[in-house]
Amino acid sequence: MAFKLKGIYAPIPTPFAGGKIAYDKLDGNLEFWLGSKLEGLVVLGSNGEFVLLSTEEKVKIISYVCEKSQGRKPVIAGTGAESTEETIYLSQKAAEAGAAAVLVVTPNYYKGSMTEKVLKKFYLEVAEASPIPLILYNMPRNTGVNLSAKVVAELAQHPNIIGIKDSGGNIVQIAEMIKSTPSDFSVFAGSASFLYPSLVLGAAGGTLALANVFPDECVKVQELFEAGKHEEAKALQFNLIESNAAVTSRFGIAGLKAAMDMIGYYGGDPRSPLQPLGEAEREELKQILGRTPYLQKAM
Amino acid sequence: MAFKLKGIYAPIPTPFAGGKIAYDKLDGNLEFWLGSKLEGLVVLGSNGEFVLLSTEEKVKIISYVCEKSQGRKPVIAGTGAESTEETIYLSQKAAEAGAAAVLVVTPNYYKGSMTEKVLKKFYLEVAEASPIPLILYNMPRNTGVNLSAKVVAELAQHPNIIGIKDSGGNIVQIAEMIKSTPSDFSVFAGSASFLYPSLVLGAAGGTLALANVFPDECVKVQELFEAGKHEEAKALQFNLIESNAAVTSRFGIAGLKAAMDMIGYYGGDPRSPLQPLGEAEREELKQILGRTPYLQKAM
Amino acid sequence: MAFKLKGIYAPIPTPFAGGKIAYDKLDGNLEFWLGSKLEGLVVLGSNGEFVLLSTEEKVKIISYVCEKSQGRKPVIAGTGAESTEETIYLSQKAAEAGAAAVLVVTPNYYKGSMTEKVLKKFYLEVAEASPIPLILYNMPRNTGVNLSAKVVAELAQHPNIIGIKDSGGNIVQIAEMIKSTPSDFSVFAGSASFLYPSLVLGAAGGTLALANVFPDECVKVQELFEAGKHEEAKALQFNLIESNAAVTSRFGIAGLKAAMDMIGYYGGDPRSPLQPLGEAEREELKQILGRTPYLQKAM
Amino acid sequence: MAFKLKGIYAPIPTPFAGGKIAYDKLDGNLEFWLGSKLEGLVVLGSNGEFVLLSTEEKVKIISYVCEKSQGRKPVIAGTGAESTEETIYLSQKAAEAGAAAVLVVTPNYYKGSMTEKVLKKFYLEVAEASPIPLILYNMPRNTGVNLSAKVVAELAQHPNIIGIKDSGGNIVQIAEMIKSTPSDFSVFAGSASFLYPSLVLGAAGGTLALANVFPDECVKVQELFEAGKHEEAKALQFNLIESNAAVTSRFGIAGLKAAMDMIGYYGGDPRSPLQPLGEAEREELKQILGRTPYLQKAM
Repeated sequence: MAFKLKGIYAPIPTPFAGGKIAYDKLDGNLEFWLGSKLEGLVVLGSNGEFVLLSTEEKVKIISYVCEKSQGRKPVIAGTGAESTEETIYLSQKAAEAGAAAVLVVTPNYYKGSMTEKVLKKFYLEVAEASPIPLILYNMPRNTGVNLSAKVVAELAQHPNIIGIKDSGGNIVQIAEMIKSTPSDFSVFAGSASFLYPSLVLGAAGGTLALANVFPDECVKVQELFEAGKHEEAKALQFNLIESNAAVTSRFGIAGLKAAMDMIGYYGGDPRSPLQPLGEAEREELKQILGRTPYLQKAM
Repeated sequence: MAFKLKGIYAPIPTPFAGGKIAYDKLDGNLEFWLGSKLEGLVVLGSNGEFVLLSTEEKVKIISYVCEKSQGRKPVIAGTGAESTEETIYLSQKAAEAGAAAVLVVTPNYYKGSMTEKVLKKFYLEVAEASPIPLILYNMPRNTGVNLSAKVVAELAQHPNIIGIKDSGGNIVQIAEMIKSTPSDFSVFAGSASFLYPSLVLGAAGGTLALANVFPDECVKVQELFEAGKHEEAKALQFNLIESNAAVTSRFGIAGLKAAMDMIGYYGGDPRSPLQPLGEAEREELKQILGRTPYLQKAM
Repeated sequence: MAFKLKGIYAPIPTPFAGGKIAYDKLDGNLEFWLGSKLEGLVVLGSNGEFVLLSTEEKVKIISYVCEKSQGRKPVIAGTGAESTEETIYLSQKAAEAGAAAVLVVTPNYYKGSMTEKVLKKFYLEVAEASPIPLILYNMPRNTGVNLSAKVVAELAQHPNIIGIKDSGGNIVQIAEMIKSTPSDFSVFAGSASFLYPSLVLGAAGGTLALANVFPDECVKVQELFEAGKHEEAKALQFNLIESNAAVTSRFGIAGLKAAMDMIGYYGGDPRSPLQPLGEAEREELKQILGRTPYLQKAM
Repeated sequence: MAFKLKGIYAPIPTPFAGGKIAYDKLDGNLEFWLGSKLEGLVVLGSNGEFVLLSTEEKVKIISYVCEKSQGRKPVIAGTGAESTEETIYLSQKAAEAGAAAVLVVTPNYYKGSMTEKVLKKFYLEVAEASPIPLILYNMPRNTGVNLSAKVVAELAQHPNIIGIKDSGGNIVQIAEMIKSTPSDFSVFAGSASFLYPSLVLGAAGGTLALANVFPDECVKVQELFEAGKHEEAKALQFNLIESNAAVTSRFGIAGLKAAMDMIGYYGGDPRSPLQPLGEAEREELKQILGRTPYLQKAM
């Protein structure tokens, strides 16, 4: 049975201790997420600091999470790299490890060369070579590259390209993607901040940094939407916006990790050059999270 | 009874013939719009080529439209100018003419100086001096200036500032504006392309270029939404996206005017330096509009 | 004999008192500038707050400055407006007043429509209608529009288009403009911060906000360059960079006006919505200017 | 004796054949460059497709070029990576291989987190750990991150940070860097297109993609400048601008490689996802290069 991309996924952070991946700490976090209402997990998304890991580390953590999750929730592995070859290599390793699908960000260092034609060729080559389904990943804030609705519509014709995570948040582009792709192609919101408006336009779910911290509340937005409870969905969406900004654009990965610490799991420090929050920022984050009713519950 | 900003408005184009405002042509268009389901009209929005009119021309066309519309639909007048003094002058003239409210775009030539503090001072001064309610107008694509949700929330405290037309289309910012302003402050979508997702977040309506061409279809999106018919609202939203792009970002004001011609009313040429569509563009626009079921009906 | 654009011009600020143009204050400033080594003056450049003046005020101040300057230094009048018609009207008035040339900024509110074709048509129409030579004005920081070297090279073929003031500061584009235009077409640096590197590439001079405050020092950069004293020119260029930033990007027109006050002439407040410097900013500006040896001399 | 960064360097392309690094082809190219007037070589700059190589490949090609060059010209190794750890590892390997210095680009995927503080900490940690001098590398077009003159001035205080390659081309920023750093800190132009204006402001040389193709002509610009022959230097600078655009912004690395083929050395295809030029582009490039007198000579 084909894997269907839907529901809420958490793009999990990679825990470090002493500069190394802290697998023991990861275990505790995984139990939290695997025991939540989340549909699945993404390992090595942008929040997983994938660009700061070596190829070996990437293969190992993908395998580790797949193994721990087996039978409980699907795992999507971030395997995008600047080179086609490396992307294919990691995608094959992810398949071997038991990942349900791969999430492939646009190559981006050579922005000026990332024309529609080049991006299409790249994704088609990876889709052909990947034993498991491929999910496009549009992340313009980090990459400076945008996957247009036109390109997405063309790539959606390939049977092994099953969806897109759009973190750009351009709601018109998201509407165009949904409108111009087959109904079995899934468009995913890439942030909790625009989850509900994406769902009403037909998004199949989302991969949300905030879902690491408040998994059930994020899932609840979709449940309320699907139950036709629009007013409640909107109210919850509004409640989540400020917390989401704090663990994404405002404080970045360091903020997400500090929030993990605050809810009683392991965040720790990001890998250098990323820096942990300072004391004042940590205090501010605490107050922001404290303004939601979810923090206490999570703790 | 206080004027309440809600529903769908058309930001009407200013018709020219021989370089002068063609009031006789405007008459025919006004009958079309005033006879439609539109809630009201905006004269001298961006689609009204306000920056290409002299102060005298502005005062005259505002008066003209108010007079013609009297008793049928409210008229909002675009009165924003680079200087505070000119903005206040035009706002007072609009009040004398019988406009329901003024729409005031951010000053923008001195972008680097348009800090939050300066923008707030500007709007508060105009709001104090304007005899009729003031609607903020955020149009970053044209101005290079963004009115943040934070500034909007603060300005919304002033009793004479009753709403905002946000044409930026950043759906998270729109959500933040709705969330952080009083319930009697109206957030308006500035484009048909993101009308439905704005409505589900609590927008009170929209001022939509496309509403000049397909007024009843735009109104229908809101009617469907308010009736809880989300699937139908979404389907109609999807249908309108391509036409909307054609009469806004793709072909600009020249496209809007050509579309007016195509539906049997008067578009004519924009004022120089803006140029009318070439033959090939006109043909392409015709095909785009022809892909909707609305063109034939309008004709 | 045809007017030749060369040397250093000051784009003079428009003095206000009580919100009105203060012609008596302008007199004193004009004596300072007309008695300096400056080649000429620009009235109603960006530093002249031209977008904050009414058409009548524009015509009057252009005439006033031309009259006061007669026989001493050429006056260039900023006549760019959003509409072709208004630009032509002001250009004809400037010619009647005795201006040597007009400086015409790119129309910019409808950025998306300002294609190369539209910009060329605009400038050719104005150049045909203007009785005096036209100088192109590229100011991307304020306009969000860039006049490319390709368009400039084409426009330079018109006999009444004699030069460009490029305030963008893209040195490669400046080189391309100089390389691709006839030798009697003048490329002018639009800021003191890149005057010297522009001169070495063949620029004919510059229109510099800083030249209002330190006119002779700005002229000296060009004198040193023309005398082949490259090391001294470079040293002076370095000295001027910090002051220049303070009266342009850092503090804007309010900074330029405060600096005029500090050197003993009249600056006064900018017109609203622009705001004067606060006390702390004024103090900081004083210290920046005090780090040059020129302030004391000017006072 | 300390290594002093000066003169013209070529940031050499990495030749591939069948997707693998073609060391035999590299040999021929190296003989060309080592026999030219170039001061030195940069291996694994942006033109070296460094982000498309594995860590092992990087270490090997650095060693290879150092070995081949020994005793003839200094080799600078690009060792920047997203993580501090990887950057230090590669820098130490480069030192072992005999590189003269390392060139370290700003980390850039997490743009929003690359504050001045984070960038300074990153560079100081690498500078401390690197056995050989460190050269900062500012490449905003590819990275979306800018190293400000202020940060550069602070980093220049560290004894192991000896210079910067600035590819941004903001000439005012280049002037500020030169002005605010010690005289033994070298500012390098990152493109032939702004080499001459950088030199007149005090740049010590440049690392220029075009120097791969026309090494002696690029060196000649600096020779002419240093001999005080400003007019000739300017004329040569003008001649190089169009060719430079073709092998950088216009056609990218594929253009540089095609140009290598055209002058009789080995270019070959870039690594996927980068694509070689199409036939029409290749023809256009040939015509552009043919408009210079240098192509024939090089062939």
